[in-house]
Amino acid sequence: VRLWVREPARAEELRARGENAKYLPGVPLPASVQPTARLEEAAREADAIIVAVPSEHARGTYRELGRHVKAGAVLISATKGFELERLLRMSEVAAEEVPAARVTVLSGPSFAQEVAQEQPTAVVVASTDVAAAEEVQRALSNRRFRVYSSQDVVGAETAGALKNVIAIAAGILDGIGYGHNTVAALITRGLAETSRLAVAMGGRPDTLAGLAGLGDLVLTCTGGLSRNRRLGQALGAGRTLAEALSASPMVAEGIRTTIAACELAARHAVEMPIAAQMRRVLHEGLAPREAVDALMLRSLKRE
Amino acid sequence: VRLWVREPARAEELRARGENAKYLPGVPLPASVQPTARLEEAAREADAIIVAVPSEHARGTYRELGRHVKAGAVLISATKGFELERLLRMSEVAAEEVPAARVTVLSGPSFAQEVAQEQPTAVVVASTDVAAAEEVQRALSNRRFRVYSSQDVVGAETAGALKNVIAIAAGILDGIGYGHNTVAALITRGLAETSRLAVAMGGRPDTLAGLAGLGDLVLTCTGGLSRNRRLGQALGAGRTLAEALSASPMVAEGIRTTIAACELAARHAVEMPIAAQMRRVLHEGLAPREAVDALMLRSLKRE
Repeated sequence: VRLWVREPARAEELRARGENAKYLPGVPLPASVQPTARLEEAAREADAIIVAVPSEHARGTYRELGRHVKAGAVLISATKGFELERLLRMSEVAAEEVPAARVTVLSGPSFAQEVAQEQPTAVVVASTDVAAAEEVQRALSNRRFRVYSSQDVVGAETAGALKNVIAIAAGILDGIGYGHNTVAALITRGLAETSRLAVAMGGRPDTLAGLAGLGDLVLTCTGGLSRNRRLGQALGAGRTLAEALSASPMVAEGIRTTIAACELAARHAVEMPIAAQMRRVLHEGLAPREAVDALMLRSLKRE
Repeated sequence: VRLWVREPARAEELRARGENAKYLPGVPLPASVQPTARLEEAAREADAIIVAVPSEHARGTYRELGRHVKAGAVLISATKGFELERLLRMSEVAAEEVPAARVTVLSGPSFAQEVAQEQPTAVVVASTDVAAAEEVQRALSNRRFRVYSSQDVVGAETAGALKNVIAIAAGILDGIGYGHNTVAALITRGLAETSRLAVAMGGRPDTLAGLAGLGDLVLTCTGGLSRNRRLGQALGAGRTLAEALSASPMVAEGIRTTIAACELAARHAVEMPIAAQMRRVLHEGLAPREAVDALMLRSLKRE
């Protein structure tokens, strides 16, 4: 197993320390995992390649990969988000840039730290290529890491992306000091608007109710570790976006995804009030409290 | 507003202290709320009556209420569970015992402590009597406590009852030391089996995906305060059922509901693996860890 990282100095550090001290501290890298900064070396003989770069680097990474991947290799996209320019899902970007590969998507409630600790975890691999999904399922599954297969790529990717938008809103509720009741209502409404969009895009309702939808949304909005939620908490507690961003080395995908979500909502004529309010907070300077009060305290109607 | 409590000494204590020190400490009773131990006095002139007794006392309470309630009064059932003898929902018990009343059901993610603190909270009132549901909606709603109306009584009551079973399982995961990934997977599977049962009983899928379904389940399984989850935590940490029960003055409805759920599952030919395992833990002495490992580490299949 080769682990590709962009910077040679980081690859050297991973090799020397036997640990990813920046992103996954305390977890020893298995001896079978060999860090490298040379993508060609990592990709050339690989039968399966997990790609987990931030969405804004996806196209560049896949383009480079496309020059090295052997025909028939399986790509496993773990990136959550859309390409903003053409509102493409990550698997669409992968398919454009690496036509020789078979593309699958990995999603579901799986904080990396807990996976590394071998906490029981259940995820979904989705692909229109059933054989490819089943190969990934066999390759990645063990007793503690359960991989279920699905053919609904659109549903899995849309849910995986949108959960980061809802998580920012959940973090804002926390940061303001609102309690569990309020977050539970937000999660419910968040899954509803995500489902509307995903189904309009061709996804299956079952996927939204499953691990890649409900499961991942609940984890991201209530678990302690999610970076998008942490960003929202900082905003809700009164920090500026710049201050909130400087506090974490990780990418909060929800910032970009909020823009994509609002554009997709318009394209598919779907109402997404949470995404719309988050766009106003993140990109137009609306006070977080005004945004969530507009969401949570709207006029009465039937559910 | 009259607040009925069964024991005269407790009513006197509530009056004297102006606070429910046992169940809702730190929250002053409003002056408009008058505690009484005389059900007739509480019910006689009431236009609307919220009933929140434990399920095992529901029939007795409704029977007594039936002698005092004025015709056309609205009953609002907040009890979660089933009557074990005939597997009746609480609103069915109410309708049998108080035929002169109009019956509604209140459900949704709403820890009492947070409602009392005026945290934004959204719930559902369900009734086949649309006018009655709308009366309750108007009577109980304010800016911070949002009441949505629904006609799906079966879905709301089934979801409200079953969430306590899933919450016990979630607590067991916590008690064992499993992390957020595992709980998120359990919640997903828990809502799936609850939905199967509710739909088989005549409930609507939308209700299960809404505040009374998903919302309340998420709250109960991830919020810090739920009594059923606390019971599960104690079991997961190795305590016996008797030890776990003696730690809390509150009723863990999930214990009884687990029995009802398994019987309803058999009656409606629906698979409910979580309820089945919880029954074995609570009523047949199965080790909690074996039960949840059987659930979380089952053989692979499509989701």
